[in-house]
Amino acid sequence: MRAERRLDRSGWEPDGIPEAVAFPRTPEEVQQILREATLSRTPVVPRGAGTALTGASAAGTGTIVLDLSRMDRIVEIRPADGVAIVEPGVVTAELDRAAGAYGLSYAPDPASLAVSTIGGNIATNAGGLRCAKYGVTRDAVLGLDVVLASGERISTGRATLKGVAGYDLTGLFVGSEGTLGVVVGATLRLRPLPEPTATIAASYPDITTAAAASVALAEARIQPVLAELLDEATLNAIDPALRAAGAALLIVQTDGGPDEAARALEVLTKGATTIRSATDPASLLAARRQALPAIERLGRPLIEDIAVPRSRLAEAVREIETIAARHEVPICTLAHAGDGNVHPIIVAGRHGEPIPASAHRAADDIFALALRLGGTVTGEHGIGVLKKAWLRRELGDLSLDLHHQIKALFDPHGILNPGKALA
Amino acid sequence: MRAERRLDRSGWEPDGIPEAVAFPRTPEEVQQILREATLSRTPVVPRGAGTALTGASAAGTGTIVLDLSRMDRIVEIRPADGVAIVEPGVVTAELDRAAGAYGLSYAPDPASLAVSTIGGNIATNAGGLRCAKYGVTRDAVLGLDVVLASGERISTGRATLKGVAGYDLTGLFVGSEGTLGVVVGATLRLRPLPEPTATIAASYPDITTAAAASVALAEARIQPVLAELLDEATLNAIDPALRAAGAALLIVQTDGGPDEAARALEVLTKGATTIRSATDPASLLAARRQALPAIERLGRPLIEDIAVPRSRLAEAVREIETIAARHEVPICTLAHAGDGNVHPIIVAGRHGEPIPASAHRAADDIFALALRLGGTVTGEHGIGVLKKAWLRRELGDLSLDLHHQIKALFDPHGILNPGKALA
Ligand SMILES: Cc1cc2nc3c(=O)[nH]c(=O)nc-3n(C[C@H](O)[C@H](O)[C@H](O)COP(=O)(O)OP(=O)(O)OC[C@H]3O[C@@H](n4cnc5c(N)ncnc54)[C@H](O)[C@@H]3O)c2cc1C
Ligand SMILES: Cc1cc2nc3c(=O)[nH]c(=O)nc-3n(C[C@H](O)[C@H](O)[C@H](O)COP(=O)(O)OP(=O)(O)OC[C@H]3O[C@@H](n4cnc5c(N)ncnc54)[C@H](O)[C@@H]3O)c2cc1C
Repeated sequence: MRAERRLDRSGWEPDGIPEAVAFPRTPEEVQQILREATLSRTPVVPRGAGTALTGASAAGTGTIVLDLSRMDRIVEIRPADGVAIVEPGVVTAELDRAAGAYGLSYAPDPASLAVSTIGGNIATNAGGLRCAKYGVTRDAVLGLDVVLASGERISTGRATLKGVAGYDLTGLFVGSEGTLGVVVGATLRLRPLPEPTATIAASYPDITTAAAASVALAEARIQPVLAELLDEATLNAIDPALRAAGAALLIVQTDGGPDEAARALEVLTKGATTIRSATDPASLLAARRQALPAIERLGRPLIEDIAVPRSRLAEAVREIETIAARHEVPICTLAHAGDGNVHPIIVAGRHGEPIPASAHRAADDIFALALRLGGTVTGEHGIGVLKKAWLRRELGDLSLDLHHQIKALFDPHGILNPGKALA
Repeated sequence: MRAERRLDRSGWEPDGIPEAVAFPRTPEEVQQILREATLSRTPVVPRGAGTALTGASAAGTGTIVLDLSRMDRIVEIRPADGVAIVEPGVVTAELDRAAGAYGLSYAPDPASLAVSTIGGNIATNAGGLRCAKYGVTRDAVLGLDVVLASGERISTGRATLKGVAGYDLTGLFVGSEGTLGVVVGATLRLRPLPEPTATIAASYPDITTAAAASVALAEARIQPVLAELLDEATLNAIDPALRAAGAALLIVQTDGGPDEAARALEVLTKGATTIRSATDPASLLAARRQALPAIERLGRPLIEDIAVPRSRLAEAVREIETIAARHEVPICTLAHAGDGNVHPIIVAGRHGEPIPASAHRAADDIFALALRLGGTVTGEHGIGVLKKAWLRRELGDLSLDLHHQIKALFDPHGILNPGKALA
C-alpha cells in the first residue's frame, strides 16, 4: 500500500517509501491528520489519482500520503444554478458524465480525465483539449473548501457564478500543487456546451503551414473547441501512411454551427495537402488518441509541456526537431495549437531502463527554448520536482521570494508537500 | 485638480481633500512615488477613471492620488498570439476597438467601458454584459507588471494563453482594489468573438416566469452572450407602455448561429406575453440602455450589486420589491440573468440632497438577502468602503484574518489605498 502510493506518473523516484498512507473519508479526518502532522512536523503529501507528470505527488521517506480518492461523492448538482458541489476524490470524467444528464458539461478535460481526480486537477490547474475555448480548471472553480496546514478549515470563493468580495484565495489554491492547503470540497461551474458541429483533419506539407492555418482561424473570428497539431515524428510513430499525407496534421473541431464549420473548412484548406471533414468526430480524432500509445511503443515517454505565444508555435516545433537531432533522442511533438501549449514527448530509452542523460539534456534545451520564445516551462502539468530549477529562471528572484513568503504564511512549518512546486 | 480627484461615482465622501495628485507617465515614476510614500508613510490612492461605485477610488486628507490615466498607450497588439500589451490608463472601449481591427475582441464589457480604464477594471475585476459567456476581467488577464508598495517592480503571469508555473499572483492582484500593488502594465487575452446572430426581447407576466425562461436556456444547451432582466419598476421608469407588455422583460443575445437562435426563440416563447426577435440588436437593446438614465430622472441612484445562485434570481427580485415597500424607497432592479448578478438601484432621494437613512437600511437588507440566498454582497463592483462591514459576514473571521496577513505581506506599512477593500 505504501509502496503503491510512492510514485506518480513522472518516472521521478523519491528516496525511500512513505511512513504511512491515510484514506480520510471526511474533512474532519483531514483536519485531524493535519493537526497531528503540524504537531509532529511530519510532511504530508496530498494525493488524488497519482497521475501527475512532474513528481508533484511522489512521496518518500518520512512522509504521510494523504490519499483523498475515497472522498469521492458528487454531493450535489444544481442544474438551474450551473453549479456542482463535489468532494476532491471525484474522478473528472464522472463529474462530466453526471453533468451531461442535465445538458451541462464540466469543461476542463485533461487527457487523464478517466482516472484523474478533481482535487488533483485543481491542485495542478489542469488543462485539456477544449480549454482553448472553454477555459482551464481555474476557470471552472467557483469556490473551495480547504483544510490549512494548521488543521483549520476555510471556505474560499462562492456558490455564485460571479463575485468579487475579498482577495482571490480560490485562485491562489488552484495550481498550488498541495503546498498551501488540502482541498476537501469544491464548488464548480457547469456549462451548457454545444455539441461539436464539425471535425476537420487537415494535412500540411510542413509544420509552418499547419501552424499558420491554426492562427488564420482566429483572424476569421473562429475559435475552435480543439485544435490539435501532430508533428512528423508523431505521425510516423502512429502510421507512416499518415505521414505520407503531409508532414504535419491539424485536427480541428468547431461547435458554432454549420456556417462557422464551413468557414473553418475554407480557412484550413489553404495550403493543405489533404483535408477531411466529418460529422462523426471519432474517426478523425483517432490519430490524436493513438499518438501516446504509439509513442510508448518506441520506448519510455517523458511528456514535456511548454507553452509559447501562438505565433511562435512553428518555430518551437522546428527547434525541438533540432534539439532531438543534436542529442540523438527521438522527440515526438503534439500541441494544443489553439493556446500554444506544446507537448514534446522525449523517447527516453527503453521502458524499465534508466533514463539516458541525453534525454535530460534535451529536456533542459526545451525549457530554455520556451523561455527564449517568451513562453513558460509548463503550460498545464505544473512544476512538481522536475522543473524546480527552471522556476527561478522563469519567475525571477523577487517574484520567487514573494512565493516563499506566501508559502510561509499558509504553511509556517513547511509540512504541506515540501520540496514541491517551489524552487 | 485635487478636489476633482477626491470622489468616485459612489456618492461616498471622504474627509478633506487629497494632499497631491501625481500623473506618472512611466513605471519608473510610479516606483519613485511609492518609494517616497513608503519612506514618509503617506497613503497612496491609485486611480483610473474614478468610476468606482464603492468609494474604492475616493481620496481624502493626507493622501496622494496616483492618477494613471496618462499611462494610456496600447503598447502592442499581437493578433497571431491573441494578446494585447497595454498601459493601465487605456480606456476599455479603446482597447476593444483596436482589437476589432484584427477580428478580435477584448471581452469584458462593463457598462462604464466608454470611460473606465483597464487598470481600474483589473483592480476591481470588472464584469459586464457578455461576461456570462466570455468571462470577467480575471479571465482576460494573462500577466501583470506591478509596482509593489516598496517601489519594487514584478511581473506576474505570462504572455502565453496558458501556463501554470508558480502561484497565481496575477489573480491575487486582480480585484484587490489597489491595496496590494499598482498595475503599471498588463498582458491581456483577445478573443475572436463571433458576431451576435440574434437578439430577442421577451416580456413575461411576472419575474418568476422570466427567470425560469433564462434558466431554461441552459437546460437547452444554449449559453447566451447576454441575458438582461428588467423588473417592473425599471420598465415603468423607462416607459409605462413597456410595462404594459408584461411585468418583466428579458433581453437575450446569442452568437452560436441560426439554429441556436431558433432554439432560443422557442425556449423563450414559453410563458411570454410578447416576444420580438431582430437581427438588428440596437432597437431591442435600447430599453436596457435607457434604464439607468430613466432611473436617474427619478432621483439619485445608489447602484447595488449582489449575486445569487441563478435559481434564486426570481426570489431575490421579489424580496427586493418587499424591501422597497418596507422602507418606502423606490428600487428598480436590473439583472445579468445568465450569472445571477442583480443590480437593485435604490432611488435615494433627490440629486444633491443627503441620502435618506431609509436608503441605507434598504441596502443593508439587500446585502443580508444576498447572503441568506447563498450569494455574495458584490458580483462585480467590489467592496470599496461602502461594503466593508459586510465583508466579515461573507468571508468569516478566519478567512478575513488570512486576507489581512496577505495585505501585510505585500504592503507592510499599509500605504496602498488604506481603509479600502478589507474590513
Ligand atoms: C496519460 C496522461 C495524460 C495527461 N494529460 C493531461 C492533460 O491533458 N492536461 C493536464 O493538465 N494534465 C495531464 N496529465 C497530468 C495529470 O493527470 C494532471 O495533472 C491531473 O490533474 C492530476 O490529477 P491526480 O488526481 O492524478 O493528482 P495527483 O497526481 O494525485 O496529484 C497532483 C498534485 O495535486 C496535489 N493534490 C492532489 N489532490 C489534492 C487535494 N485534494 N488537495 C490539495 N492538493 C492535492 C498533489 O499533492 C500533487 O501536487 C496527464 C497525465 C497522464 C498520466
Ligand atoms: C455608469 C456606470 C456603470 C458601471 N457599470 C459597471 C459594470 O457593468 N460592471 C462593473 O464591473 N463595474 C461597473 N461600474 C463600476 C466601475 O466602472 C468599474 O469598477 C471600473 O472597473 C472602474 O474603472 P476606473 O478606471 O474608473 O477605476 P477607478 O474608479 O479609478 O478605481 C477603481 C479601483 O481600482 C483601483 N485602481 C485603479 N487603477 C489602478 C491601477 N492601475 N493599479 C492598481 N489599482 C488601481 C483604485 O484604487 C480603486 O480601488 C460602473 C460604473 C458606472 C459609473
